[in-house]
Amino acid sequence: MSNLKQRILSAVEADLGAVEAALSENLTPYLDQVSEAARHILFSGGKRLRPLLMILSARLCGYAGDYDITFSTSFEYLHAATLLHDDLVDDADLRRGQPVAHSKWGNSTAVLVGDFLFARALSIAAETDRPEIIRVMAAITEDMSQGEIHQLMRKGAVDLTESEYNEIIRRKTAILIQGACRSGAILAGAGKDEEMGLARYGFHIGIAFQMADDLLDYISDTHVLGKTVGADLREGKLTLPVIYALAHASEPDRVWMEGIIQKGAFTDDEFTRITGILEAYGGITHTRQMAVQHISTAKDALSCFEPSKTKDILFDMADYALERKI
Amino acid sequence: MSNLKQRILSAVEADLGAVEAALSENLTPYLDQVSEAARHILFSGGKRLRPLLMILSARLCGYAGDYDITFSTSFEYLHAATLLHDDLVDDADLRRGQPVAHSKWGNSTAVLVGDFLFARALSIAAETDRPEIIRVMAAITEDMSQGEIHQLMRKGAVDLTESEYNEIIRRKTAILIQGACRSGAILAGAGKDEEMGLARYGFHIGIAFQMADDLLDYISDTHVLGKTVGADLREGKLTLPVIYALAHASEPDRVWMEGIIQKGAFTDDEFTRITGILEAYGGITHTRQMAVQHISTAKDALSCFEPSKTKDILFDMADYALERKI
Repeated sequence: MSNLKQRILSAVEADLGAVEAALSENLTPYLDQVSEAARHILFSGGKRLRPLLMILSARLCGYAGDYDITFSTSFEYLHAATLLHDDLVDDADLRRGQPVAHSKWGNSTAVLVGDFLFARALSIAAETDRPEIIRVMAAITEDMSQGEIHQLMRKGAVDLTESEYNEIIRRKTAILIQGACRSGAILAGAGKDEEMGLARYGFHIGIAFQMADDLLDYISDTHVLGKTVGADLREGKLTLPVIYALAHASEPDRVWMEGIIQKGAFTDDEFTRITGILEAYGGITHTRQMAVQHISTAKDALSCFEPSKTKDILFDMADYALERKI
Repeated sequence: MSNLKQRILSAVEADLGAVEAALSENLTPYLDQVSEAARHILFSGGKRLRPLLMILSARLCGYAGDYDITFSTSFEYLHAATLLHDDLVDDADLRRGQPVAHSKWGNSTAVLVGDFLFARALSIAAETDRPEIIRVMAAITEDMSQGEIHQLMRKGAVDLTESEYNEIIRRKTAILIQGACRSGAILAGAGKDEEMGLARYGFHIGIAFQMADDLLDYISDTHVLGKTVGADLREGKLTLPVIYALAHASEPDRVWMEGIIQKGAFTDDEFTRITGILEAYGGITHTRQMAVQHISTAKDALSCFEPSKTKDILFDMADYALERKI
């Protein structure tokens, strides 16, 4: 384990334990099958990034109440709900090294358990009695579903632009992380500057995390990644490494890549050529550079906060986006 | 058209027009495909029962604000979201005489547009700035998903009891109508008695409407109903007419019916025998009696309100549950 990861884990150890316990306690599922499928998606090695960011954001704003741990589960339930539905929409096969829920319990259960987790998230958020938090949560869910629909509609479209990609990952990933950080500030009763600073921080690390994720689909391997490498391309999902490479590739390389995308299937040898092309035309480097830039913007957004241990952890978590192997 | 239906329609004509317009205006969909699929489910002949009940409930409690029409769309969006997901879960083919959304746009779109409508409903509700309304809405969505899961798990179970059936329809239907009526009272700032009275009214007409719906699946025909008659039984969904008949049937009739349920398919002649059995063992009569009883309880629940034109309409709407042909 890297020094950075170790430092983060030891700093958030107590919170992480509390979040894990709360995720289990606040589930209150009514039926066994809900419980089983919900637990499958919830307790299969998630990093709890969203709950932790919400808790740290509240703490950075001086939160002294006792609802932060409970409330933080909202963001993990919401995240898990979207994973259930997205895996179904993407027809994924593996998630964190496990068969996806819809392949174990069927599509119907995946749809309905997703709905249940979604509702649970809103119920827990409603207990804060803060209408602005509910508005943030409702807006997140709207944006996320729209981002997924956008992605779905543009599957296999070789003319997807970098700005359209940015729009998609803004909605499907960054908005939720932004919302977690922002809600932490609102829960703490922070001023508008702090709230907006944390919102910006969350937004930019969200973008960076998604870019890092999209990179991993090409530079990791299935065993380490816990899901099938190259899955995005197989699903016709064009991400920044590919978009950038296509825009800069020679005619023959571009035409070959477009053929692969249209076919939606490739051999191991072809995958090696694909990653070679992504490297050669700067797709990998450009994506990494953009992620670095977003991390830097995220850190700048916290300039309104005095140095503190909590701020250090938030900086470490930002850096972690870039060194992730899984 | 019956006198009752005519009386209701002329009494709510202006509200109905306003609801239709608001449903279209408040959709603000981001992408064409969301728009198309959302409109398909929203504008295909829904009766707007839930928005109307919310508006009438608020009016009965003396509501004088201007958010009732907008807020009422929340309940129709929520309803439409569950229809999209339920049709997918049930693998239905027709809804209100039209092919279901997932057969036109695919499962993925049905899942994601359902999520979008769900989120839209919460966003609109959040604008009321009333945390108790959000809590009601969040609780509704939790209950509904659990009701659907319960139904799914017990598909084809010939040992489903009347009390289990009541529990399922409470969650999947009554809770939303109860919530619409109750939220109307909360929006109007009504006292606890009025709020609880309207909640009870909504709950019992919700149960009665579902029972009437379940009856229609056996006593209507596909052309009038706009969906395939006998669909419930084909899907292995046991409703009160069948549950009651099975409990009272002779051994040979019961065994034959159970065989049909297990097979999940039947000819037209077999369907005629099925409805004959439901008649013969009181399944139809009992279900109708139970619905009548719930309508009567619903009306009693409004006893804390003085006579008024609005109360008359709410009584008419309760009676309408029993005379519905579609």
